[in-house]
Order: sequence, then structure tokens, then C-alpha cells
Amino acid sequence: MKERKIPKETIDRLPLYLRCLEKLIEDGEENISSKNFSKRLNLNSAQVRKDLSYFGDFGTRGVGYKTKKLASKIREILNLNTKWKMALVGVGNIGSALLTYTGFDERDFQVEMAFDSDPELIGKEINDVEIEEVSRLPERIEAEEIKLGIIAVPASAAQEIADQMVEGGVTGILNFAPALLNLPEEVRLAQVDITKELEQLVYYL
Amino acid sequence: MKERKIPKETIDRLPLYLRCLEKLIEDGEENISSKNFSKRLNLNSAQVRKDLSYFGDFGTRGVGYKTKKLASKIREILNLNTKWKMALVGVGNIGSALLTYTGFDERDFQVEMAFDSDPELIGKEINDVEIEEVSRLPERIEAEEIKLGIIAVPASAAQEIADQMVEGGVTGILNFAPALLNLPEEVRLAQVDITKELEQLVYYL
Repeated sequence: MKERKIPKETIDRLPLYLRCLEKLIEDGEENISSKNFSKRLNLNSAQVRKDLSYFGDFGTRGVGYKTKKLASKIREILNLNTKWKMALVGVGNIGSALLTYTGFDERDFQVEMAFDSDPELIGKEINDVEIEEVSRLPERIEAEEIKLGIIAVPASAAQEIADQMVEGGVTGILNFAPALLNLPEEVRLAQVDITKELEQLVYYL
Repeated sequence: MKERKIPKETIDRLPLYLRCLEKLIEDGEENISSKNFSKRLNLNSAQVRKDLSYFGDFGTRGVGYKTKKLASKIREILNLNTKWKMALVGVGNIGSALLTYTGFDERDFQVEMAFDSDPELIGKEINDVEIEEVSRLPERIEAEEIKLGIIAVPASAAQEIADQMVEGGVTGILNFAPALLNLPEEVRLAQVDITKELEQLVYYL
């Protein structure tokens, strides 16, 4: 199959296709038309066909896409067939919730290490993960070869933690702190900013 | 001041400008140049000037923008000067974390009501909010005139909860469930999808 450069917008939509496909497979559906896809995902069907065309010939006229085959292809494209070990820093409310978040298990994401600066927390276990002293962050994630970091500390500490993650070899960061991070170009950032989402939402209300 | 139609992309960036301005105000900075803005937010400065031009003449050549004045204007534009009461449904890990989330206090967002279906949870209080029986959701949020709902239930229950929220008069929903929601056109949706963010991230690693 020819590999063409896939636009970021298409990549960003792949997890949504995958979610939709998994629901269909659960419901016993073997095929889905681009029209049905577009309805479920609120996209136009030309866009759906274009997105999926990057991955080869999965569609058959009048039948649509094979749900299982397409789901497995999308998982492969998104690198989801590996187990992704993650290091979490900040075991407050959000951090604790992430340590027990069942959504990670459904995917191959796993919080493998957790760090905090609070002496009361160090040594405690949540969901089989022992909370470690944050000063050891760079050496510990380097030793465990962890490439994905989750930041759940207050905004004021976020940049420092990000720097230490990068020092320890992390190349992807999921940031829950409402802070703007400066990162080297080769490090990828995803931001989950709860109040920003709400602020954007209420503008329209 | 003339009010022009503001593009969605600009609105989406306003919370970031605001966050940046608040940090500057905290640090005692009275002015910021568009160049400094663009550096901090990783945008080009023409974009910054264009974004901010929608809100009237805040910039002065050679001086930049007055941090306090611009922050207050952005808050006004984003409707952040009102207290936004929210109803949360689903008091699991993520839901509990949201009930005690300090990021809401810094803004004028407040989880005012919480609902769950688990009899063990009904009647308990978290952060002064009593957890109520979810079957009463529509009538209760209607009575309290709540316009913002937060969904933190499993994906399989999310659509039903969304429907009940809409029935109760909610016009904006923040959804943490990894589910695609069908909503009436007049209801605004923001999605916080943690595994989707990770899936998009690891593609590039």
C-alpha cells in the first residue's frame, strides 16, 4: 500500500472513527457506510471517504467498510498496538482520578509510575502504583524508559515538571495544568484544559 | 465600539490570552507587546494583533496592550463575569475529582449539584454538594435553572444523561465520557476526551 502524508486533521479524527467502529463491533455490525459514519460523527461523507482513503481500499461500493478490518488498521496507524507506559506527576484530585481511570485500560495506556512532592503521599500505593518522590523524576523515568508523561500539578509547577520529564527522555506530554508550556520542538504536547473548555463553551450560551 | 462577528478560532484562543494576561498581572507587568504575546502563546504576532483587534483599540504602538484592561475586556467578552452554576452527573473517579477541582474556583464556575445512580452515594456530601438520585435530574436542574451540565458517566450512559440534561433546560454540556453525543443544534458541546488526546499524541511518537 502506498503511504501518503496524512494531514493532522485526519489523524485527529481517527480516534473518533475508532471509537465509533468499536461500538459497532460490540453491536455485531460487520459493515458501515460512509454515510452512516458521517451521520454518527457529524462529518460530511465526502470528508469521511477522503479521511479513510489514506489507509488504502477499505470501502466497497454499496457495502461500505468492514468494521473489524478498519478498526484494526486504525489501531495500527495510531501506534495503539503497543503498550504505552506513562509517568504521572501530581497525585492530587485529578492525578488520583487518573491513577484509577478505567478508560486507560480499554486502550493500551497504563500509568506505570506516579510522583508527588508531598511527603504524606510518598510510599502510598494507588491502583498498584507506588507514589515516588518527585525529585527523582528524571532518573526514574529514564531508567524505566518511559516516553509519555502526564502533568497534573498546579500551573505554577508545570513548566519545571515538563523540563524534568524532557530531561528524563519523555517525548510526549499530556498536560492537565492550566499553564502554557515551552517544550523542545521534538516533544509533542496535548493539553486537557477543563476551564478553557468551559470558557469557550459559555461564550456561546 | 463596533461589534464585529468574531471567528470561532479567535474565541477559542481568548482563554489562552486571558491565562497569559493573568500570569503577567500576577507578576506585576502592566503592558505586553503583541510580539511577547506571540512568543508566549506560540502564535505569530500578526495573528495576535488580528485576534485582539476585534475588541477595539487596546494596543498602543511601542507599548503594547494594557494587561489589566485587556484581561477585563476578555472576561467580559467570554461572559465570565457571571457565576456559572453547573450540574455534574456521575460521581466516579473523574466526577469526584471535578467536585473538588480548585481550577473552577479561580474562574466563576461552580458545581452546584451532583447526581449518581449508585444508592451508596446518594445523600453523601462532597465539597458541600449533596449527591442526588439521577432519576430526578431533569426536574431538579430545571428548578435550579442550571444551564451548564457536566457528564462524567460511562460512555454507555452518556447519551441518556445528555437527553435528560437538555430536557431540564441545559444549553451547554461538558462531556468527559468517551462517547459521541447527539444534541439539538442549540445546545453547545465541549468534549474532554482523555484517551483521544493520548491516541492523537502517540501517533507522532
